[in-house]
Amino acid sequence: MNTNTPLPASGALAEVQRHLLDGKAATIAWLESYLRLQSVSADPAHGPDMAATRAFLVERLHAMGLADVQLLDAGGEAAVFGQWLGAPGRPTLLIYAHYDVQPPEPLALWRTPPFEPTTVGDRIYARGASDVKGATAIALAVVESFLRVHGGCPVNIKVFLEGEEETGSPSLRALALRHAALLRADAVLSADGGRASALVPTVNTGARGNAQLEVRLRTADKDLHSGRYGGAVRNALHEAARLVASLHRADGSVAVPGFFAGVRAPGERERADTAAFPYDEAAFFADVGALPHGEAGYSARERITLRPALDVNGLYGGHTGAGGKTIVPCEAVVKLTVRVVTGQDPAQVIHAVAEHLQALTPPGCSLEVTALHEGSPASTLAPEHPLVRAAETVLAQASGMRPIHVRLGASVPITSLFKETLGMDTLMFGYNLPDEDVHAPNEFFRLSSIHDGLMAWSSLLHELGHFSAADFPLATTPTQEI
Amino acid sequence: MNTNTPLPASGALAEVQRHLLDGKAATIAWLESYLRLQSVSADPAHGPDMAATRAFLVERLHAMGLADVQLLDAGGEAAVFGQWLGAPGRPTLLIYAHYDVQPPEPLALWRTPPFEPTTVGDRIYARGASDVKGATAIALAVVESFLRVHGGCPVNIKVFLEGEEETGSPSLRALALRHAALLRADAVLSADGGRASALVPTVNTGARGNAQLEVRLRTADKDLHSGRYGGAVRNALHEAARLVASLHRADGSVAVPGFFAGVRAPGERERADTAAFPYDEAAFFADVGALPHGEAGYSARERITLRPALDVNGLYGGHTGAGGKTIVPCEAVVKLTVRVVTGQDPAQVIHAVAEHLQALTPPGCSLEVTALHEGSPASTLAPEHPLVRAAETVLAQASGMRPIHVRLGASVPITSLFKETLGMDTLMFGYNLPDEDVHAPNEFFRLSSIHDGLMAWSSLLHELGHFSAADFPLATTPTQEI
Repeated sequence: MNTNTPLPASGALAEVQRHLLDGKAATIAWLESYLRLQSVSADPAHGPDMAATRAFLVERLHAMGLADVQLLDAGGEAAVFGQWLGAPGRPTLLIYAHYDVQPPEPLALWRTPPFEPTTVGDRIYARGASDVKGATAIALAVVESFLRVHGGCPVNIKVFLEGEEETGSPSLRALALRHAALLRADAVLSADGGRASALVPTVNTGARGNAQLEVRLRTADKDLHSGRYGGAVRNALHEAARLVASLHRADGSVAVPGFFAGVRAPGERERADTAAFPYDEAAFFADVGALPHGEAGYSARERITLRPALDVNGLYGGHTGAGGKTIVPCEAVVKLTVRVVTGQDPAQVIHAVAEHLQALTPPGCSLEVTALHEGSPASTLAPEHPLVRAAETVLAQASGMRPIHVRLGASVPITSLFKETLGMDTLMFGYNLPDEDVHAPNEFFRLSSIHDGLMAWSSLLHELGHFSAADFPLATTPTQEI
Repeated sequence: MNTNTPLPASGALAEVQRHLLDGKAATIAWLESYLRLQSVSADPAHGPDMAATRAFLVERLHAMGLADVQLLDAGGEAAVFGQWLGAPGRPTLLIYAHYDVQPPEPLALWRTPPFEPTTVGDRIYARGASDVKGATAIALAVVESFLRVHGGCPVNIKVFLEGEEETGSPSLRALALRHAALLRADAVLSADGGRASALVPTVNTGARGNAQLEVRLRTADKDLHSGRYGGAVRNALHEAARLVASLHRADGSVAVPGFFAGVRAPGERERADTAAFPYDEAAFFADVGALPHGEAGYSARERITLRPALDVNGLYGGHTGAGGKTIVPCEAVVKLTVRVVTGQDPAQVIHAVAEHLQALTPPGCSLEVTALHEGSPASTLAPEHPLVRAAETVLAQASGMRPIHVRLGASVPITSLFKETLGMDTLMFGYNLPDEDVHAPNEFFRLSSIHDGLMAWSSLLHELGHFSAADFPLATTPTQEI
């Protein structure tokens, strides 16, 4: 350890944590205001809500004492940025979160309005509560308390709040390259990517990457009367069903040729870590009313963290309204997500899926495959990285247990994107839990996670202050393209 | 032939036809008003439009001189009725049409508003123009002209306009039984069920029946995050695709066990009639941008008229809005239509499909199959029936060609329903043509068909006046259940 400024006293942390607990009601109130903003990035109709959310965050970053507060933009939804660089020699951490949320549909299944935060016991229900406005409130409150109590943080801070995470961050790469100087830090601390368990402390050391595509199949110029054409022409939904049914084997494993190119079998350590994780498989499935189903030879937990997956997220064609309509549909649309693991190239995987579907498309039909975004590879954080060591220290102190290394099944594309563009490693230190119905109706966040998160984030910043910038792996020079 | 009133003079017909041609502009204007009424029976939101359409028709039946004008109802959408019974001893014809139309969706594909009739050249575009408001305008104008010019018709007339044809006539059976006395006639003359060809005269001697069902498949209690569950649970859309893909063989023939029970191979006469029909198969497919595809061993025309079919009309599940959404969907809905031929029992066919799907549904998933209506069997009109003979005479006179017997691929459920409930045979004498995009965007009807239809319908009523009621097959006594 190479320190060239005085270490913060541990009394300093205690004072900050008292301040955080005294201000917890205000932190929750701010979170509620944040949750009322309908920042749905996937739906262009919510453009004004996205802008209102940015204004709300700009005001907050100013108020908490950050400098250089501004919107950063590269043609898509702008990101919100602010920084405090008053700890020379200490590491600089880019705190990442995203202010956009998933669409709330299907609305009929929400028990409370998705954009009216509703507290029931320990739970606050709202779209985005868990993913990821709750953890954002924690991170901002911690930085603010350090600045208020001590006039400074143990590390240098850059806050970066993205607006395109839920749509696959289409312009984030260009944005990171355009604003490289402003964004470059020694590492990224992400409020996104939550805890794997409520029972044991875990350190996230990686995540599956992903890629999304949309497939449009056409069998005729128009919908046809099923009495006049039924039995004599292809039906777009029959063909789409045949294509989708071809994607998986009976056990649920992916049957697309080339899909597994570059995938290596999980190592001993990965399988041991996965096995050590106290995972109630029966409860995992019972909680969602599903039975286990997947690639033979792997546990359910291995399937969702160490193995790739391919899921149809949406499919529609023909008459989708009330009642019947006697047509032979001419078009079907299929939306898919690929989850990739270390070694897979998302672009190659998309290509393999597109080739497979194209090969099965009959003559006279047209198939159009569109990648919804360029995709992101899986990410991996080395066990000896200062971020992992600091997180282990903090979590061990808080829990009295040895933290377990886990990998996420869900993708945090920024992790690999920041690595590729700015050479920065990312520690995911979100405080949400796996049962909080993210991306689904009745999403919620736990009020107790706010308490735990405030303590852990303040401890982590304090702990990272024990390192110097030089302790972090050298950032590679990014490609200078814009 | 057994006549006990004087035959109408042929001069009487000429006078009526002059009156019809003089009033053609008024007939078209009335049709346009009729097309503006958004009588979509499948969508409960159009309830008020359905009521407005009934009021519009009641006014018309009164104005044209019918008696006993009234709404007939058996719990569903009411039918509109009126009669003229001033020709004792002559046959009584029930003129059938339906005032409801298919939903106009997808709206984006209409080049003109679906409920604003737009004339371009010989075509009048609007939802319902071809199916079947155009032919309804013809039939009513013909009856009205006979009454205006001669104060009477060559035959007794009952007009019956149904409001549930496009939803499978759920309450028509109950309605026919409840109002049996009012509706019973020697035969039915249907304005629905159009011409098979613009080139040669054809007499419709039957139609495929149909049945509709909706299948709802569930694999979990809720939509799941595809990162957190993808690869470890069943996906409702993967399972739905597998079920749909199992319904047909590679050639497009139906693969459901028991589906063909009761179906006999087409007879010599049926195949000869089908072959005699001047059918441009290449144009049939080119017009709609599709290639032939179907059961091996049959021509395309045989496939759509003499063989049964099973089509998915709509399928949806998961995210169907803009952009992507990374979920594992928990539910899929599939809408299906079965087209049945002579010998098939629609209820048995629905049962066979449901059994087949149920057998393929994996453990832990639920499948709910709902018959959208009870279905209707195929119908057949004997070649020696007075309706067929009269139609042949009229069409031969008008065209100078021998009419060809054809069967319809599309279903006209009332045909079998009127046979079963009131013992009445039906002649389908609609004037629409097969290329008029019924059930699809940009539906249209030909103005020239209005001219031809006015001439043919007036000739047909005149010709049927040469028969007596006793020439018609004895009506069977209907079941007295209500």
